[in-house]
Amino acid sequence: MASLVHILSQIESGALTPQAAIDASAKAVAQRDGEIGAFVRTVPDPRAGSGPLAGIAVGIKDIIDTADLATEMGCPAIYGGWQPRADAPVVARLRTLGATILGKTATTAFAAMDPAATRNPHDPARTPGGSSSGSAAAVAAGMIPLALGTQTAGSVIRPAAYCGVAAIKPSFRLLPTVGVKPSAWTLDTVGVFAEGVADVAVALEWLSGRPMPLADMAVPLRFGVVRAEHAGAAEPEAEAALSRATALLVAAGHLVVPLRLPEICAEAQAAQLTLQNYEMAQAMAWEWLAMRHALPPRIGEVLDAAQAIGAADYDRARGTARQARLAVRDTFREIDVILTFAAPGIAPDRATTGDPRFNRLWTLLGVPCVAVPGLRAGRMPVGLQVVGPFARDAATLAAALALERLLAAAPDL
Amino acid sequence: MASLVHILSQIESGALTPQAAIDASAKAVAQRDGEIGAFVRTVPDPRAGSGPLAGIAVGIKDIIDTADLATEMGCPAIYGGWQPRADAPVVARLRTLGATILGKTATTAFAAMDPAATRNPHDPARTPGGSSSGSAAAVAAGMIPLALGTQTAGSVIRPAAYCGVAAIKPSFRLLPTVGVKPSAWTLDTVGVFAEGVADVAVALEWLSGRPMPLADMAVPLRFGVVRAEHAGAAEPEAEAALSRATALLVAAGHLVVPLRLPEICAEAQAAQLTLQNYEMAQAMAWEWLAMRHALPPRIGEVLDAAQAIGAADYDRARGTARQARLAVRDTFREIDVILTFAAPGIAPDRATTGDPRFNRLWTLLGVPCVAVPGLRAGRMPVGLQVVGPFARDAATLAAALALERLLAAAPDL
Repeated sequence: MASLVHILSQIESGALTPQAAIDASAKAVAQRDGEIGAFVRTVPDPRAGSGPLAGIAVGIKDIIDTADLATEMGCPAIYGGWQPRADAPVVARLRTLGATILGKTATTAFAAMDPAATRNPHDPARTPGGSSSGSAAAVAAGMIPLALGTQTAGSVIRPAAYCGVAAIKPSFRLLPTVGVKPSAWTLDTVGVFAEGVADVAVALEWLSGRPMPLADMAVPLRFGVVRAEHAGAAEPEAEAALSRATALLVAAGHLVVPLRLPEICAEAQAAQLTLQNYEMAQAMAWEWLAMRHALPPRIGEVLDAAQAIGAADYDRARGTARQARLAVRDTFREIDVILTFAAPGIAPDRATTGDPRFNRLWTLLGVPCVAVPGLRAGRMPVGLQVVGPFARDAATLAAALALERLLAAAPDL
Repeated sequence: MASLVHILSQIESGALTPQAAIDASAKAVAQRDGEIGAFVRTVPDPRAGSGPLAGIAVGIKDIIDTADLATEMGCPAIYGGWQPRADAPVVARLRTLGATILGKTATTAFAAMDPAATRNPHDPARTPGGSSSGSAAAVAAGMIPLALGTQTAGSVIRPAAYCGVAAIKPSFRLLPTVGVKPSAWTLDTVGVFAEGVADVAVALEWLSGRPMPLADMAVPLRFGVVRAEHAGAAEPEAEAALSRATALLVAAGHLVVPLRLPEICAEAQAAQLTLQNYEMAQAMAWEWLAMRHALPPRIGEVLDAAQAIGAADYDRARGTARQARLAVRDTFREIDVILTFAAPGIAPDRATTGDPRFNRLWTLLGVPCVAVPGLRAGRMPVGLQVVGPFARDAATLAAALALERLLAAAPDL
């Protein structure tokens, strides 16, 4: 593993130069990525920059524009060799901060459900999750300390959980989605992967230009434990992880209450799918009209079916989403954060990228979600998820860090 | 002039073929655009499509992606010859409907304030307004029946008012902005220009997939007349136009009340500028960092200054915007629509594109705005603006149509 905070502290102490750190990341990719397939292309001669993130090698999901690297949207049949003119603002910002864009990471086609070729670093027969498959796997394999992904349903938090790394899907619009291939514009969110929660917090602080203090929360914290009945049952490994985390939080003196979400959330879970598919059918109108033959099967079928969703269905779903946001805002009056499943269980085999059913609602609500690593079932990671109120990204990260530290002391289920 | 509704009815009656309609538009561009400069490029051999908008030639603002035509963002120094891979969804939709994309229309660089070369069809010494300069001028000159533009501050309604055509800036997100060069993502709105309000309504109905009935409103309508003190004083021509419209509405039996906006609107007017400039600095990070030398002077200076806007200022402006939206929602409980200035006066000379100060607030609020043509001061048009509640685009158009019909009977100030 490669901790962003650790690398920066080594550079600050003089134990490491920025270029040596970049070289180490490039070497790790050269040595290990043949087996994992996290990267779809890399820069030939990566140079360290200067700035607060100098020495940090970053992987960028290949639906995010880069001015010096092709951006193929996970679909070379349509976007093979496609070279954007500009960097996406999140990429430009990373360069300004001194970070080095090491390469583009594998994504499912158009960030949807057709699996990418990437393997889970913990078991090559299993998926790393999707759609930010390469970003999660590259960090999990210790090749790079930082990667960007995106989430429209569950594409940041789920692969982080499957790969055993930390990640944040920040509050909606905290990071600009300009220069990111749109899937559903009311849902698409740029997220950050790193080894641990503290690493994610430092990266988000710099990327967003907002302080993310991790030590400011009153202790004990108030956790609401949500089993998310609206999303169906979790698998035994995820249940065991949630129980373990709950027990550890209680033992550490935090306040932990079981919480049922407002009834509107079941309807909101369905509304997320309506919004996503209607907007995707619009956002990808050209690909569907002019390039249907070249679309991979699952995205093709989703877009075919989505043509039948009418504007009235969509407008109703928007209304449901608005009601759910208001209802869950009230839910947060009694607690600091929600603790819940990040995924149904451990990573399944590579026939799919897993199921985003425990992520859809939170993406719809636009609230910050942090994937917390630390627990394992056998050799496979089982991530959990801490969810906070809208725009309380720092507080959500702080609670996630508290949990991460407790889990680190008791990693096996 | 070329009315979309008239062309479609001629086609329906058999008096005109779709191809003859397209040929007539292409011929008008060939004959007249040398003087006006509304188009930056056209397709060589435009063919009529099939569908409900067959025979309708459309001009597309040159910050909106077209798969068959370069898209230069009004800045050939940076985007010269830039060929997007895909059509923007609004363009793909027009093609599906049978419309013909005739060409790309002139825009100020990146839809900001550096004037394009376009001339006002009513006086070549005057600006057509901006940033959707070519779209407004092309429709005003009768070259095409339909054009798309975008508004982030006042870039649809102001040029429509200066050029004497109808236009709508629909409710925020009614039309997708995917494939449109982002300026400020919480403000950017795709708008529609056409000869009259009924033409705009038909186009928006097809583009949005939502019914836009114009005959459903209870009569008399309730108009709130807003002089928009938060935006400073209007010029005598605009004052005269508003007085004339008010008198005509009263004479026709409508209910007309003077209305003061909630106090928060003055603060919201300032917040719009903060939001716009902060987001623009992010959206155009690559252009500013890598291409500063090639930026036209005004956008360059705006971006330079915008680097100083902090995240805290931005977040405060977002809060102000939210408060203003709630306050103005209450304002609409007593009235159907607001009637107000579309621009400070008639089109000024070509040193600027005019001032969007009477548009900023409404763009911030995300509410539908319709530019209503019909009045003139000398040979120059003086447009007015009808503003409706969020998502009440059809009702706003219906009220605008009622006003347009009254103005048509008494055109000179």
